Amino acid sequence: MAVVLAFVILGIYLIRNSNPQQEASGIERTTSAYVTVISFLFGAVCSGVAGYIGMWVSVRANVRVSSAARRSARESLQVALRAGGLSALIVVGMTVLGVAILYSSFYVYLRVEDSNTMHVTELPLLLVGYGFGASFVALFAQLGGGIYTKAADVGADLVGKVEQGIPEDDPRNPAVIADLVGDNVGDCAARGADLFESIAAEIISAMILGGSMAKRCRLEDASGFILFPLVVHSFDLVVSAIGILSIRGTRDPGSKSLVEDPMAILQRGYSVTLILAVLAFCGSTRWLLYTEQAPAAWLHFALCGLVGIITAYIFVWISQYYTDYKYEPVRSVALASSTGHGTNVIAGVGLGLESTAMPTLVISVAVISAYWLGKTSGLVDTDGSPTGGLFGTAVATMGMLSTAAYVLTMDMFGPIADNAGGIAEMSQQPDSVREITDLLDAVGNTTKATTKGFAIGSAALASFLLFSAYMDEVSHFAQIKFNEVDIAIPEVFIGGLLGSMLIYLFSAWACMAVGRTAQEVVNEVRRQFMERPGIMTYQDKPDYGRCVSIVASSALREMIKPGALAVVSPILIGIVFKIVGQYTEQPLLGAKVVAAMLMFATVSGILMALFLNTAGGAWDNAKKFIESGALGGKGSDAHKAAVTGDTVGDPFKDTAGPSLHVLIKMLATITLVMAPLFL
Amino acid sequence: MAVVLAFVILGIYLIRNSNPQQEASGIERTTSAYVTVISFLFGAVCSGVAGYIGMWVSVRANVRVSSAARRSARESLQVALRAGGLSALIVVGMTVLGVAILYSSFYVYLRVEDSNTMHVTELPLLLVGYGFGASFVALFAQLGGGIYTKAADVGADLVGKVEQGIPEDDPRNPAVIADLVGDNVGDCAARGADLFESIAAEIISAMILGGSMAKRCRLEDASGFILFPLVVHSFDLVVSAIGILSIRGTRDPGSKSLVEDPMAILQRGYSVTLILAVLAFCGSTRWLLYTEQAPAAWLHFALCGLVGIITAYIFVWISQYYTDYKYEPVRSVALASSTGHGTNVIAGVGLGLESTAMPTLVISVAVISAYWLGKTSGLVDTDGSPTGGLFGTAVATMGMLSTAAYVLTMDMFGPIADNAGGIAEMSQQPDSVREITDLLDAVGNTTKATTKGFAIGSAALASFLLFSAYMDEVSHFAQIKFNEVDIAIPEVFIGGLLGSMLIYLFSAWACMAVGRTAQEVVNEVRRQFMERPGIMTYQDKPDYGRCVSIVASSALREMIKPGALAVVSPILIGIVFKIVGQYTEQPLLGAKVVAAMLMFATVSGILMALFLNTAGGAWDNAKKFIESGALGGKGSDAHKAAVTGDTVGDPFKDTAGPSLHVLIKMLATITLVMAPLFL
Repeated sequence: MAVVLAFVILGIYLIRNSNPQQEASGIERTTSAYVTVISFLFGAVCSGVAGYIGMWVSVRANVRVSSAARRSARESLQVALRAGGLSALIVVGMTVLGVAILYSSFYVYLRVEDSNTMHVTELPLLLVGYGFGASFVALFAQLGGGIYTKAADVGADLVGKVEQGIPEDDPRNPAVIADLVGDNVGDCAARGADLFESIAAEIISAMILGGSMAKRCRLEDASGFILFPLVVHSFDLVVSAIGILSIRGTRDPGSKSLVEDPMAILQRGYSVTLILAVLAFCGSTRWLLYTEQAPAAWLHFALCGLVGIITAYIFVWISQYYTDYKYEPVRSVALASSTGHGTNVIAGVGLGLESTAMPTLVISVAVISAYWLGKTSGLVDTDGSPTGGLFGTAVATMGMLSTAAYVLTMDMFGPIADNAGGIAEMSQQPDSVREITDLLDAVGNTTKATTKGFAIGSAALASFLLFSAYMDEVSHFAQIKFNEVDIAIPEVFIGGLLGSMLIYLFSAWACMAVGRTAQEVVNEVRRQFMERPGIMTYQDKPDYGRCVSIVASSALREMIKPGALAVVSPILIGIVFKIVGQYTEQPLLGAKVVAAMLMFATVSGILMALFLNTAGGAWDNAKKFIESGALGGKGSDAHKAAVTGDTVGDPFKDTAGPSLHVLIKMLATITLVMAPLFL
Repeated sequence: MAVVLAFVILGIYLIRNSNPQQEASGIERTTSAYVTVISFLFGAVCSGVAGYIGMWVSVRANVRVSSAARRSARESLQVALRAGGLSALIVVGMTVLGVAILYSSFYVYLRVEDSNTMHVTELPLLLVGYGFGASFVALFAQLGGGIYTKAADVGADLVGKVEQGIPEDDPRNPAVIADLVGDNVGDCAARGADLFESIAAEIISAMILGGSMAKRCRLEDASGFILFPLVVHSFDLVVSAIGILSIRGTRDPGSKSLVEDPMAILQRGYSVTLILAVLAFCGSTRWLLYTEQAPAAWLHFALCGLVGIITAYIFVWISQYYTDYKYEPVRSVALASSTGHGTNVIAGVGLGLESTAMPTLVISVAVISAYWLGKTSGLVDTDGSPTGGLFGTAVATMGMLSTAAYVLTMDMFGPIADNAGGIAEMSQQPDSVREITDLLDAVGNTTKATTKGFAIGSAALASFLLFSAYMDEVSHFAQIKFNEVDIAIPEVFIGGLLGSMLIYLFSAWACMAVGRTAQEVVNEVRRQFMERPGIMTYQDKPDYGRCVSIVASSALREMIKPGALAVVSPILIGIVFKIVGQYTEQPLLGAKVVAAMLMFATVSGILMALFLNTAGGAWDNAKKFIESGALGGKGSDAHKAAVTGDTVGDPFKDTAGPSLHVLIKMLATITLVMAPLFL
């Protein structure tokens, strides 16, 4: 965290440099700089705190879940879920609260009520710093956490499971503690920061779009459109809480095993949340988005929200289809394991690449239909042309995120169950306990994968919004209408090429960081086994501390390169092409090239993240499927091949993939904040 | 081939459907349809013949190389190189000849000389069918060939090398014949068709751009600009032939081993070719592109050509850096093998993803600088604004391809050497022979990888040209100026997203096809080993035929799905969005969405192909590095892990990767031919 903070300080200086140019806004430039830096810092701190809370709750819940598993499966499911729910609600709550606090204090401080230069519709643009701060911290949390957790995991598995043949999370493995710590760091803290950031970015961009639309349409009271995102997310807290509480422990203390599939229980809770979310959403659109100018607009926007909610549901379903071993895809990967390591990896890669197709189609349909629902809403600008299109996609994004707290709960549930299993194994509990936690862990794997699908979907939509907000902001600053990004201009096309390449390079560095750190862990674990043969016979205690410190220092070191790439390259591209543009007399070239970079990076990022996440999840569950007894079960050659796939999938699904979600949003927020630099 | 032809017939019908709409061109619609279909068929036949010749020469050369290796290493190098050179020259020669024949017969048939409706600058647009025909056949040749060769290879390796521990190409392996046949089918025939197509597409698009530029600038004699590509490629034949002949066999029959690194010998030949190419290029620009309107233009274009030649050289160098085990990247993959299968795969994937960065930067610089060199060439249209930009990139592409025949020679050399090794192994030659062919094979691996880098670079540039030609053509047909593709329009952005997804899905299906077929081979080989234990002791002959027929029928079956995807989806996207556009009153929407699809697919395709090719090549050579004795040598655990990487890399580098080169060009030619459908 200290390192992260140091980066934050660095970030402030970067921002200070740019802000003096923000002159146009009607407020003085020092105020503008001041305000952005404050938002940035506040966003960074909130994001850090959200991550920390996620980790704090999870660590405390692990033991309780593990001990509940001694009593009843249902109870342990409930404990894990409620712990996940608590941190999820805190994360979402903090996002909403943070934006609300900033918004209202700026409102009061800048005297929007009395002022005649400053209008309420311009307030949201000042909040972009908050989104950038949040994504900045989230990127490093996700990257560092991801490297940490997976290097420990891969290292522990390669020597422990493959070479020595001891079970997962066996206390004899010197890397086991690092692995368990990593699960909390990488999954709970990082995902908390990720979704915090997603929601923050989405709220702010929706506020910007709502504000600018209200301004263009000269609505009398714009505050409904601006505050709408905050209200939706407040409802999210309520409906998700009800959904979580709807899952009750069984009263029968005698039944140790689960009567039904835990996944089915979780999905029932999700259905409750979804239904309530639809109702709450329709209510809030009627309340806030009703305007006399266009009486049917609220209905159109409610339908947009419905599109978003349905999209979220389909996304969750698709990722489940591709990563749950109940379905064909994972089974085909498992089958490929029986012909060797190579075919297993090929099958997993193929599956991952293929899994990008359906979500892309869904996103396409969702964006286009929400856009058209918005455009036909009846809201027209002063020229009479329809303007609600982008706000429609914004509302769809809100709809998608309107069950975020519940989805985040399901996600937090995974690592809690995983670690509870680890604790059960290490404290040498009876097998029945481990069986329960294993079952929960398998469900957790699927929910983790589905959450990632959800996170990508929302990241995709959020980036599209941020992109529009960026174009709005550039037009605002440059006083030139900036409403098209023409990729037939070679420089702009090259910007897109570079943006896509950025995604590949970032993924490469993230994967390689895990690979390198894991190799260090493998060598350390091998050394310990070699030097102290007593470890295998429980006579000697392994040196857990060394593994933890290797992983921690390596993760901090390795995250610098990809992190710096993400922060520096958009700024660099913008400035270089700004200069090229000045030299070749093309106005706004820098801003256009950055826009293309952003769009291409978003597209590549979505696809790459889908590929990495799904392939990783599928490999993991193919291994679990074989461990459940299929194709020869544990210890067979097929199992060994499946473990290879799992190892490969680890950095894919828990380091590179999730970091990409954050990356695409961070690219969007960084360009939004740095926009004045590119003009 | 028969199946390919059947598809060709199908393709004609697709084209016939579209052509009745091509009315604007000044010639009657039936003529236009007729001409396009003839070009298409002619292109398809030429491409097929080119592939066939490549295979025919290669099969005959294998034995001679293998027997030359009994005498001297230098001689076998020379034989392999000259055989490769022969087929390369035939392929390039056929491309040039084909276009020249079509061009001149249309010129005569349509009476361009006398006609006053038809102008010489409009002729090249009629040739697009040729490019489409070529890419159509190339796609299926590359896809089917790639699946064939790699399924056999992976299947043979998994059982033979990994399970039974017999050497590569051992005659006891029932899949060995299928593997050897596959090398010829997949590498020689397919690469020949691929480069045939690349050059054809590039010549035609450069002719179109040259023609339309000459027309806009009202140059008196446009034929210089139109015929320039043909002249450059004719020179290519001459300079490459000299380069190939500059490599001589040693006269000393006593020295069996090579005194120098074969790679160095090949590169010396390449240098000779490069220098001659530069001279020939400058000469032809002066000869054909000199115009009184802009006396300095030819110099600018000569510099563009130089940019292209330098780009080609850097591309070859970069791919060599990432795939030759003399350098750091491959060694790090080999080192990662020592910690297990998983880390090996992670390292390879990381390396592949990382390797996309440098080529992208090089392409970016090349496109922008060529564009600016062209734009500042002094050629202005009737309004006085500079127009030479795109033709500048076209000239750079020609520069890049001006050594194509030599590069193709180096590529053909690889599989010939590989198969010579196989023949040596199967006929149980002394070890010294196998050593020589192994050395040549390792060099062949690198040259194969470098050719792929070259092929991607030229595909990238060629697609950019085809894209511009597409926009030209649409403006032509629609009589509306179509010169921008604004990705801020949601539908257009979605088109881009779908285009990128297409690349992922295509790669997925290509990889999975190999995986599935390989599994069939594995099961068949295992069955043979099990049922006839005599095979291992040479007492029983394995049933080679069954493996060959399994692979052949499976390759034909498996290539249908990805092939159909490639052909159908651009047409489908265009038509769907054309309808959406009509419904929502956005003119040209279909054409714009297709343009975005094409651009995004090109970007994703370049990056994905670079990733797949480089990762595959690096894995292969990491294995070879370990086999050369590093990190425990053959049979060690590190070697086993490296074999896994190699197996994974096989479909990457020889099926999916090269098919992507063809795919991106085919998408470009198909949109060009089908453009009237989207209006």
